[in-house]
Amino acid sequence: MKNFEKTTVAESARVELHDLLHLTGAEISVNSLPAGACVPFVHAHKQNEEIYAVLEGEGKAVIDGETVPLAAGDWLRVAPSAKRQLFAAEKAGIKYLCIQVKANSLEGYTAADALL
Amino acid sequence: MKNFEKTTVAESARVELHDLLHLTGAEISVNSLPAGACVPFVHAHKQNEEIYAVLEGEGKAVIDGETVPLAAGDWLRVAPSAKRQLFAAEKAGIKYLCIQVKANSLEGYTAADALL
Repeated sequence: MKNFEKTTVAESARVELHDLLHLTGAEISVNSLPAGACVPFVHAHKQNEEIYAVLEGEGKAVIDGETVPLAAGDWLRVAPSAKRQLFAAEKAGIKYLCIQVKANSLEGYTAADALL
Repeated sequence: MKNFEKTTVAESARVELHDLLHLTGAEISVNSLPAGACVPFVHAHKQNEEIYAVLEGEGKAVIDGETVPLAAGDWLRVAPSAKRQLFAAEKAGIKYLCIQVKANSLEGYTAADALL
Protein backbone atom coordinates (compact mmCIF):
# COMPACT_ATOMS: atom_id res chain seq x y z
CA MET A 1 0.00 0.00 0.00
CA LYS A 2 1.22 3.50 -0.78
CA ASN A 3 2.38 5.70 2.06
CA PHE A 4 -0.44 8.09 1.25
CA GLU A 5 -3.57 8.39 -0.86
CA LYS A 6 -5.60 11.45 -1.85
CA THR A 7 -9.11 11.94 -3.18
CA THR A 8 -11.29 14.97 -3.85
CA VAL A 9 -14.90 14.89 -2.67
CA ALA A 10 -17.35 16.68 -4.97
CA GLU A 11 -20.88 17.67 -3.97
CA SER A 12 -22.88 14.48 -3.47
CA ALA A 13 -25.58 13.03 -1.25
CA ARG A 14 -23.00 10.66 0.26
CA VAL A 15 -19.38 9.73 -0.35
CA GLU A 16 -17.73 6.91 1.61
CA LEU A 17 -13.97 7.22 1.96
CA HIS A 18 -12.84 3.84 3.36
CA ASP A 19 -12.23 2.20 -0.01
CA LEU A 20 -11.26 5.38 -1.87
CA LEU A 21 -8.44 6.13 0.59
CA HIS A 22 -7.72 2.56 1.75
CA LEU A 23 -8.41 3.56 5.34
CA THR A 24 -7.54 0.97 8.00
CA GLY A 25 -8.62 2.69 11.21
CA ALA A 26 -11.85 4.47 10.26
CA GLU A 27 -14.72 4.73 7.84
CA ILE A 28 -15.63 8.32 7.02
CA SER A 29 -18.62 9.51 5.03
CA VAL A 30 -19.40 12.99 3.72
CA ASN A 31 -23.16 13.45 3.70
CA SER A 32 -25.73 16.02 2.57
CA LEU A 33 -29.41 16.01 3.45
CA PRO A 34 -31.69 18.57 1.78
CA ALA A 35 -34.10 20.67 3.85
CA GLY A 36 -36.84 18.54 5.37
CA ALA A 37 -35.01 15.24 4.80
CA CYS A 38 -33.67 12.71 7.29
CA VAL A 39 -31.69 9.51 7.38
CA PRO A 40 -34.61 7.10 6.92
CA PHE A 41 -33.84 4.81 9.86
CA VAL A 42 -32.74 4.77 13.48
CA HIS A 43 -29.52 2.84 14.06
CA ALA A 44 -26.95 1.90 16.66
CA HIS A 45 -23.60 0.11 16.35
CA LYS A 46 -22.05 -3.10 17.62
CA GLN A 47 -18.49 -1.80 18.22
CA ASN A 48 -18.10 1.56 16.57
CA GLU A 49 -18.10 5.02 18.11
CA GLU A 50 -19.40 7.61 15.65
CA ILE A 51 -18.25 11.21 15.50
CA TYR A 52 -20.37 13.68 13.57
CA ALA A 53 -19.13 17.08 12.34
CA VAL A 54 -21.55 19.62 10.90
CA LEU A 55 -19.88 21.43 7.99
CA GLU A 56 -22.81 23.51 6.73
CA GLY A 57 -26.47 24.12 7.41
CA GLU A 58 -28.55 22.94 10.31
CA GLY A 59 -30.60 20.09 11.62
CA LYS A 60 -30.83 17.83 14.63
CA ALA A 61 -29.88 14.43 15.94
CA VAL A 62 -32.27 12.38 18.02
CA ILE A 63 -30.19 10.18 20.33
CA ASP A 64 -31.91 7.74 22.68
CA GLY A 65 -35.00 9.94 22.42
CA GLU A 66 -33.16 13.19 23.21
CA THR A 67 -33.12 15.96 20.59
CA VAL A 68 -29.72 17.60 19.98
CA PRO A 69 -29.81 20.71 17.76
CA LEU A 70 -27.02 20.84 15.18
CA ALA A 71 -25.46 23.72 13.27
CA ALA A 72 -22.21 24.35 11.39
CA GLY A 73 -19.24 24.00 13.74
CA ASP A 74 -20.89 21.39 15.96
CA TRP A 75 -19.16 18.11 16.75
CA LEU A 76 -20.87 15.13 18.35
CA ARG A 77 -19.55 11.83 19.77
CA VAL A 78 -22.13 9.04 19.87
CA ALA A 79 -21.47 5.85 21.83
CA PRO A 80 -21.95 2.57 19.93
CA SER A 81 -25.13 1.51 21.73
CA ALA A 82 -26.96 4.84 21.42
CA LYS A 83 -29.91 4.81 19.03
CA ARG A 84 -29.51 7.74 16.65
CA GLN A 85 -31.20 9.41 13.71
CA LEU A 86 -30.08 12.53 11.80
CA PHE A 87 -32.42 15.17 10.38
CA ALA A 88 -31.95 18.27 8.25
CA ALA A 89 -33.89 21.32 9.42
CA GLU A 90 -37.27 21.99 7.82
CA LYS A 91 -35.95 25.09 6.06
CA ALA A 92 -32.23 24.32 5.65
CA GLY A 93 -30.19 21.38 4.48
CA ILE A 94 -27.25 19.96 6.42
CA LYS A 95 -23.81 18.81 5.29
CA TYR A 96 -21.98 16.61 7.76
CA LEU A 97 -19.19 14.11 8.25
CA CYS A 98 -19.68 10.80 10.00
CA ILE A 99 -16.47 9.22 11.30
CA GLN A 100 -16.73 5.58 12.45
CA VAL A 101 -13.96 4.19 14.64
CA LYS A 102 -13.78 1.15 16.90
CA ALA A 103 -14.60 2.28 20.44
CA ASN A 104 -11.61 2.17 22.83
CA SER A 105 -9.19 1.43 19.98
CA LEU A 106 -7.03 4.55 20.34
CA GLU A 107 -3.89 4.14 22.43
CA GLY A 108 -1.30 6.94 22.33
CA TYR A 109 -1.97 10.01 20.24
CA THR A 110 -0.39 13.32 19.25
CA ALA A 111 2.85 13.75 21.26
CA ALA A 112 2.63 10.22 22.72
CA ASP A 113 2.43 8.66 19.26
CA ALA A 114 4.57 11.09 17.28
CA LEU A 115 8.07 10.57 15.93
CA LEU A 116 9.87 13.84 15.31
CA MET B 1 -19.87 8.22 30.36
CA LYS B 2 -22.84 9.81 28.63
CA ASN B 3 -24.20 8.19 25.50
CA PHE B 4 -23.27 11.31 23.60
CA GLU B 5 -21.36 14.56 23.94
CA LYS B 6 -21.50 17.72 21.85
CA THR B 7 -19.17 20.69 21.44
CA THR B 8 -19.06 23.69 19.12
CA VAL B 9 -15.75 24.62 17.51
CA ALA B 10 -15.20 28.34 17.06
CA GLU B 11 -12.53 29.89 14.84
CA SER B 12 -9.15 29.04 16.34
CA ALA B 13 -5.63 28.13 15.28
CA ARG B 14 -6.17 24.62 16.69
CA VAL B 15 -8.85 22.79 18.66
CA GLU B 16 -8.29 19.22 19.87
CA LEU B 17 -11.47 17.21 20.37
CA HIS B 18 -10.34 14.05 22.21
CA ASP B 19 -10.87 15.42 25.71
CA LEU B 20 -13.74 17.77 24.84
CA LEU B 21 -15.84 14.91 23.44
CA HIS B 22 -14.35 12.03 25.45
CA LEU B 23 -13.36 10.25 22.27
CA THR B 24 -12.12 6.66 22.67
CA GLY B 25 -11.29 5.69 19.08
CA ALA B 26 -9.77 8.83 17.59
CA GLU B 27 -8.14 12.16 18.21
CA ILE B 28 -9.39 14.88 15.91
CA SER B 29 -8.02 18.39 15.56
CA VAL B 30 -9.45 21.35 13.69
CA ASN B 31 -6.58 23.49 12.42
CA SER B 32 -6.05 26.81 10.64
CA LEU B 33 -2.79 28.03 9.16
CA PRO B 34 -2.61 31.57 7.79
CA ALA B 35 -1.17 32.27 4.33
CA GLY B 36 2.55 31.56 4.22
CA ALA B 37 2.57 29.52 7.44
CA CYS B 38 3.36 25.87 8.03
CA VAL B 39 3.37 23.29 10.79
CA PRO B 40 6.89 23.99 12.11
CA PHE B 41 8.14 20.39 12.10
CA VAL B 42 8.16 17.18 10.07
CA HIS B 43 6.62 14.24 11.89
CA ALA B 44 5.60 10.60 11.57
CA HIS B 45 3.66 8.30 13.93
CA LYS B 46 4.31 5.09 15.83
CA GLN B 47 0.88 3.48 15.39
CA ASN B 48 -1.56 6.04 14.10
CA GLU B 49 -2.91 6.54 10.60
CA GLU B 50 -3.76 10.18 9.96
CA ILE B 51 -6.56 11.38 7.73
CA TYR B 52 -6.54 15.02 6.65
CA ALA B 53 -9.58 16.86 5.26
CA VAL B 54 -9.24 20.31 3.74
CA LEU B 55 -12.25 22.42 4.71
CA GLU B 56 -11.21 25.78 3.26
CA GLY B 57 -8.32 27.44 1.47
CA GLU B 58 -5.30 25.81 -0.05
CA GLY B 59 -1.81 24.58 0.66
CA LYS B 60 0.27 21.45 0.32
CA ALA B 61 1.52 18.44 2.18
CA VAL B 62 5.06 17.18 1.75
CA ILE B 63 5.03 13.43 2.40
CA ASP B 64 8.27 11.46 2.25
CA GLY B 65 9.64 14.22 0.04
CA GLU B 66 6.67 14.23 -2.37
CA THR B 67 4.60 17.41 -2.71
CA VAL B 68 0.83 16.90 -2.64
CA PRO B 69 -1.25 20.00 -3.51
CA LEU B 70 -4.26 20.53 -1.26
CA ALA B 71 -7.48 22.47 -1.73
CA ALA B 72 -10.95 22.49 -0.18
CA GLY B 73 -12.64 19.12 -0.67
CA ASP B 74 -9.41 17.13 -0.62
CA TRP B 75 -8.97 14.16 1.70
CA LEU B 76 -5.66 12.45 2.40
CA ARG B 77 -4.74 9.24 4.22
CA VAL B 78 -1.17 9.16 5.55
CA ALA B 79 0.38 5.92 6.79
CA PRO B 80 1.97 6.01 10.27
CA SER B 81 5.58 5.82 9.09
CA ALA B 82 5.32 8.52 6.41
CA LYS B 83 7.19 11.73 7.22
CA ARG B 84 4.79 14.62 6.70
CA GLN B 85 4.59 18.40 6.95
CA LEU B 86 1.62 20.68 6.17
CA PHE B 87 1.86 24.12 4.57
CA ALA B 88 -0.63 26.86 3.79
CA ALA B 89 -0.28 28.42 0.34
CA GLU B 90 1.77 31.60 0.04
CA LYS B 91 -1.33 33.65 -0.76
CA ALA B 92 -4.11 31.72 1.01
CA GLY B 93 -4.61 30.15 4.41
CA ILE B 94 -5.82 26.61 4.92
CA LYS B 95 -8.37 25.16 7.36
CA TYR B 96 -8.14 21.40 7.82
CA LEU B 97 -9.06 18.49 10.02
CA CYS B 98 -6.55 15.92 11.19
CA ILE B 99 -8.08 12.61 12.31
CA GLN B 100 -5.73 10.22 14.16
CA VAL B 101 -6.77 6.58 14.45
CA LYS B 102 -4.82 3.44 15.27
CA ALA B 103 -3.84 1.79 11.97
CA ASN B 104 -5.65 -1.50 11.28
CA SER B 105 -7.99 -0.99 14.25
CA LEU B 106 -11.25 -0.90 12.30
CA GLU B 107 -13.12 -4.20 12.07
CA GLY B 108 -16.71 -4.14 10.72
CA TYR B 109 -18.22 -0.83 9.64
CA THR B 110 -21.43 0.63 8.26
CA ALA B 111 -23.82 -2.27 7.48
CA ALA B 112 -21.50 -4.87 9.06
CA ASP B 113 -21.41 -2.97 12.36
CA ALA B 114 -24.91 -1.47 12.39
CA LEU B 115 -27.87 -2.52 14.52
CA LEU B 116 -31.17 -1.45 12.97
